[in-house]
Amino acid sequence: MNWQMARRAERLNPSTIREILKITERPGIISLAGGLPSADTFPVQAMREATATVLRDTPREALQYAASEGFGPLREWVAAELWSQGLKAGADQVLITTGSQQGLDLVGKVLIDPGSVVAVESPTYLGALQAFAPYEANFTAVAGDDDGPLPEGLDAAGRGKDGARFLYLLPNYQNPTGRCLPAARRLALVAKAREISLPIVEDNPYGDLWFDEAPPPPVSASAGVGADGGAVYLGSFSKVLAPGLRLGYVVAPPALMPKLLQAKQAADLHTPGFNQRVVHEVIKGGFLKQHVPTIRARYKAQRDAMRDALHKHLPPGCKWQAPLPQAVEAGMAYVPGSAFFPHGGHHHTLRLSFVTVAPAVIEQGVAALGRVLKGVM
Amino acid sequence: MNWQMARRAERLNPSTIREILKITERPGIISLAGGLPSADTFPVQAMREATATVLRDTPREALQYAASEGFGPLREWVAAELWSQGLKAGADQVLITTGSQQGLDLVGKVLIDPGSVVAVESPTYLGALQAFAPYEANFTAVAGDDDGPLPEGLDAAGRGKDGARFLYLLPNYQNPTGRCLPAARRLALVAKAREISLPIVEDNPYGDLWFDEAPPPPVSASAGVGADGGAVYLGSFSKVLAPGLRLGYVVAPPALMPKLLQAKQAADLHTPGFNQRVVHEVIKGGFLKQHVPTIRARYKAQRDAMRDALHKHLPPGCKWQAPLPQAVEAGMAYVPGSAFFPHGGHHHTLRLSFVTVAPAVIEQGVAALGRVLKGVM
Repeated sequence: MNWQMARRAERLNPSTIREILKITERPGIISLAGGLPSADTFPVQAMREATATVLRDTPREALQYAASEGFGPLREWVAAELWSQGLKAGADQVLITTGSQQGLDLVGKVLIDPGSVVAVESPTYLGALQAFAPYEANFTAVAGDDDGPLPEGLDAAGRGKDGARFLYLLPNYQNPTGRCLPAARRLALVAKAREISLPIVEDNPYGDLWFDEAPPPPVSASAGVGADGGAVYLGSFSKVLAPGLRLGYVVAPPALMPKLLQAKQAADLHTPGFNQRVVHEVIKGGFLKQHVPTIRARYKAQRDAMRDALHKHLPPGCKWQAPLPQAVEAGMAYVPGSAFFPHGGHHHTLRLSFVTVAPAVIEQGVAALGRVLKGVM
Repeated sequence: MNWQMARRAERLNPSTIREILKITERPGIISLAGGLPSADTFPVQAMREATATVLRDTPREALQYAASEGFGPLREWVAAELWSQGLKAGADQVLITTGSQQGLDLVGKVLIDPGSVVAVESPTYLGALQAFAPYEANFTAVAGDDDGPLPEGLDAAGRGKDGARFLYLLPNYQNPTGRCLPAARRLALVAKAREISLPIVEDNPYGDLWFDEAPPPPVSASAGVGADGGAVYLGSFSKVLAPGLRLGYVVAPPALMPKLLQAKQAADLHTPGFNQRVVHEVIKGGFLKQHVPTIRARYKAQRDAMRDALHKHLPPGCKWQAPLPQAVEAGMAYVPGSAFFPHGGHHHTLRLSFVTVAPAVIEQGVAALGRVLKGVM
């Protein structure tokens, strides 16, 4: 049988990260590649208690088909949490998704026509590029500096007939750069976006994982998610609880919610109700207020280990071309930076993750990378 | 902000069933509308034991990011189970999905171009219509009789430049008609589909729920899912375990797997690993061999109650126009048949579900429907 593929299938590609994760499963490889949360942070005991409670008190409801919008009390929890960060949305504006990756897919499905422009940072999260690409988006990179995209960079993306459908933005600890947008830049971007009627899709999986001080309020807090709001906000439980539960959420203006909800129904009917109830059971009493600081402390120590190891082992001012095979031979793995750029290139960049392996192992991995780099330079 | 929607968003619509489910949440309504599995069939004790085991033995793996393909042992279980039904596929051809609704979405994403034809039965499962519609499919209804679609009906859908991308088929206990394709019709359809190079997407959520004898082998067993296979097969754990876990699977020829897998990555990275491991823990020792017969016995008794109540309470040869408001006033709800027809119409049809409410309540609901029908006729 000769299967005729849809044109959009040409825009589906293997994930660089997932291909590399296969390599890193080889024994003896120190992986600084995948940004997996440290499994030591997973609240296993709380999960044990919560699953037992849910299966004791509401097993029939937890195992039955459920509302596409999500579990009501969890939607209310999300709305209240965001309210405390200055993002004022009602629970009826919260759509629970099967991980925040699904939020990206639903946004793409509802907002991107073939050939329409999506404005992105360069580099940006490659999972977003993968989600938007099959809807045949044309990516345009917004000019930026160390504080993130420049407001004047939005003019080129602009609105109007051929203007961008939205700006995709990761304001907090961006993947892959780690950059955090200062408050002033956020406000300047929102003002410019409003001026040129450019919607903003804000992705915030990492906002809770600050080390020294909390990040400024979400961009969506000033762009708004109300009746004339200009933002969609994506959040996730993957980094503060556990990614294997696949729980995220989209917060959107009322004008967008019906279509996002219908896209959600078409995509998987609803996010597993069992998982939603278990997570709500874990967090409803304030668990994250104790738990998240322990993740911050752990990751800060790992970040410091990475910083120290880079300083100790890497030659200054290095530029090189994809030495991945040599690095794997030397026993470590990273993600080439090129995958995060909407138009590729940038072969002199790479992403190192510091959350998955222990500090001592970070140093071994960076030392191996340093030997490779010194060898090729 | 004036949000510009994608053209495909026009094809997203509220689910009739989900809208009706909201009505049926009113106190006092006997719902014969939604096809929810009976919660009495959920294996709560087995779930308790399995979640405890998974969180004791492999909590870190279960809560971490996981492979997009799915949990290896669960893929192997699916392949072995299908092998026993005559469908010969390797575990590497099994993609675990977030419910089989996601399988429909991924198939649509990979195979449907705007304006391309998808051949369907009329009526057919409305969730499939909802999944395919936003990819801007044009549905063509295949002529059929009481045994299902007619092979000669496929000629009109055909292949070639403007021919159908695939035939979507629910061979077992079709939703909404309950019709089961006899073995001879299956083979005739497969022969015709092969002759005109028309792929078949077989959806089989209900195949295990037979009452008197097992259905014939899957259509995919003869159409094939191998190197030159002409079928994609969709399965689900929703009807034999619990829908709230959102676990289904796609089995596809090797030529299709890479694109389906990449679409899966883009859609939600992977199906919750926790759920996959729990379900595998429940079923790995042969649990379904004891469990599924208890579901069959229960649903058979409910089907009999429905049949008897219809015979007792409904006027013969009835035709009518959507008496939903009167039925709700009379205290019962059903799904109008129109929603299942790709081009609407057919207002003289309705779907009654017999699995969710108890046999005695079925009779009350049908009696209320009978009173309404006698009143409007």
